[in-house]
Amino acid sequence: MNPHVTIREVALRDGLQIEAPIPLSAKLQLLDAIAATGAREIEACAFVSPSKVPSMADAAELAAELHRFPGIEFSALVASPNGAKRAMAAGLNAIQYVVAASDAFSHANVGRSSADATAQIGEIVTIAHDAGATAEVIIATAWDCPFEGPTALQRVLDIATTACEQCVDRISIADTIGTTTPGRVSSLMAALRPRIGTTPLGGHFHNTRGAGLACAYAAVAAGITRLDSSVGGLGGCPFAPGATGNIATEDLVYLLTDSGIDVDIDLHAAIAAADVARSLVGHDLPGALLHAGDRKRQ
Amino acid sequence: MNPHVTIREVALRDGLQIEAPIPLSAKLQLLDAIAATGAREIEACAFVSPSKVPSMADAAELAAELHRFPGIEFSALVASPNGAKRAMAAGLNAIQYVVAASDAFSHANVGRSSADATAQIGEIVTIAHDAGATAEVIIATAWDCPFEGPTALQRVLDIATTACEQCVDRISIADTIGTTTPGRVSSLMAALRPRIGTTPLGGHFHNTRGAGLACAYAAVAAGITRLDSSVGGLGGCPFAPGATGNIATEDLVYLLTDSGIDVDIDLHAAIAAADVARSLVGHDLPGALLHAGDRKRQ
Repeated sequence: MNPHVTIREVALRDGLQIEAPIPLSAKLQLLDAIAATGAREIEACAFVSPSKVPSMADAAELAAELHRFPGIEFSALVASPNGAKRAMAAGLNAIQYVVAASDAFSHANVGRSSADATAQIGEIVTIAHDAGATAEVIIATAWDCPFEGPTALQRVLDIATTACEQCVDRISIADTIGTTTPGRVSSLMAALRPRIGTTPLGGHFHNTRGAGLACAYAAVAAGITRLDSSVGGLGGCPFAPGATGNIATEDLVYLLTDSGIDVDIDLHAAIAAADVARSLVGHDLPGALLHAGDRKRQ
Repeated sequence: MNPHVTIREVALRDGLQIEAPIPLSAKLQLLDAIAATGAREIEACAFVSPSKVPSMADAAELAAELHRFPGIEFSALVASPNGAKRAMAAGLNAIQYVVAASDAFSHANVGRSSADATAQIGEIVTIAHDAGATAEVIIATAWDCPFEGPTALQRVLDIATTACEQCVDRISIADTIGTTTPGRVSSLMAALRPRIGTTPLGGHFHNTRGAGLACAYAAVAAGITRLDSSVGGLGGCPFAPGATGNIATEDLVYLLTDSGIDVDIDLHAAIAAADVARSLVGHDLPGALLHAGDRKRQ
C-alpha cells in the first residue's frame, strides 16, 4: 500500500454546493480554517451556471483571494469549455471537468449526453494547458446513477481512455450518490488501472450509505494515491437525489494515519475546520470525529 | 475472501444495554422484527448485575420466550461464572464471556483485573459445556482502552491462547470504544490467526469514529467469517466513555452483499427492524440506510 495519500479538501465546492449560499466573507473564514489544516490541494469553487448552482455564483470573487495562500494548489470544477475559460480568466491553475458516465445523470447535471460531455474533454484540456494550468477529468456516477441504476463498466473505461488520449493530467472516479462498496471499488480499480497508464488516479466517495470510508480504504489498498473529502462531511449534489455527505476529512485523516498511511492534514486542525463549517452553514454535520473526538479524548 | 459471513444481531443486548430499560413486550416486538430478518444468530440478553445494567434485568423472562424461534441460535453475554450459571438455568444454548484486555477497563466493567477475568475462562467453559451449551470469549478493548490508551498486542494474544487451551468454541475481538482502523485490524488478525488454530474468529466493531464498516470489511478481507452488528446502529457500552454505536446491521448487509459476500440477513427486513428499534427507544439511530434507503430508492 502506498505510504502517502494526498487528500484534496472539497468542502468549499462540493461541500457548499448543496447549501443555501453563504456570504463570501464566510467562505473566506472557512478557507482560512481549511488552509490551517495543512491541506496542499483545495477545490475552491465551481465555474458553472449561477442560476443552477447559486452557492457558486461568487467563484471569481473567491478566486481573487486565493493568492494569499502560496503553496496550496487551488482548483475549480467546470462543466463546459466556457466554465474552463472563466476559471482561467479568474487565475485558477487547476480545473476539474466532470463527465458523468450515465446519460440520465449527465443530462440532469449538464444538459447533454455522456458522449457529448466526453467529446469536449480535448477542448477543456487545451484551454487549461494553453493557460499553463492542469486539467483533471472526474468520472461521475462511475458505479451507479440515481436514475439509471448500475453504470456499465465499459462506459467508465471509455471515458478514461479518451481522457488519457486527450492528455488530461489526472483522472478521478466519483461515487456521486454514495452507493458503491469496497468490492466494487476494487473491481473498477483493477479494470481501470491498465487503461490509464501512469496518469494519477483519485477517488471521490460519499458516505450516504455508511460505506464511504470503507470504499476509500479499499481504493488505497488497490493503489489509489488521491482522495477527496470535506471537513465535517459537508456536502452533496443538488442534481443527485439522496447524495448527501462527502466522506469527512477528519474521519479520513484519522483512519489513514491510524492505519499507518501518511497524509498532509493535521487531525485536530481538520476537526476545528469542521466545527467552523458547522457554524457557518448553521446545522449539524455528519462527521464522526466532530462528535466523538479522537481516541485520546475521554 | 470468504464468500459467506455470519452476522450476529446484537441489538437486543449491546444495542439496548446503554438505553433506559424498555418493557419486555417492547423487546419481544424488536425480537420479532429481528427474527424476520433471517438472522441465524441473535445475542438476546446479558446475565449481569441488574443494578449495574438495569436494561438487562429481565434476561430470564426474555429467555423464556426464545423457544418460539426454532432454528435461531440465541446467546447471552455473561461476565462471571455466576452469570454463566444463570444463563444455563434460563435455557440458553450459547454464552459469550467478556474478557477485557486492559486492566482499567476490566476493573470498570467487571470489578477485577484482566488476568483474574482470564483465569475464569476455564470455569465458564465448563459450566457451558456441562449444560450442552457453547462458550465464546469476547476479547474487549482489543485495540484501545478508554482509560489506558493502546492495548498491548501480547495481552490479546495471551487471552486468545488461554481461551483456546480452555476449549472455547469461538473467539471474538471487540473494538469496544470504536477507535481502531483497517490497518490495525489487519495487523491484529495476522498476529492472532496462528495462535487460535481453527477456532472460529469473529469481529465486533463500533462506528464511533466512522471507521466501523471499514474495519469490518478489513476483517473479512483478513479471513474473519463472523461479525456482530445491531439494527440501526443501536448501542454502546455504559462503562466505556464515548462508545456509541455498533455498526448498523442494514449498512453491513448492504456493504457485504454489494461487494459479493453472502449473508443470511435480508436488507429490507433489517431496515424495517431498525425502524422498529428507533420507535421503541424513542430517538433517532445512526444507521445510514435507515435514512438513505438502499440504492434502488430515488
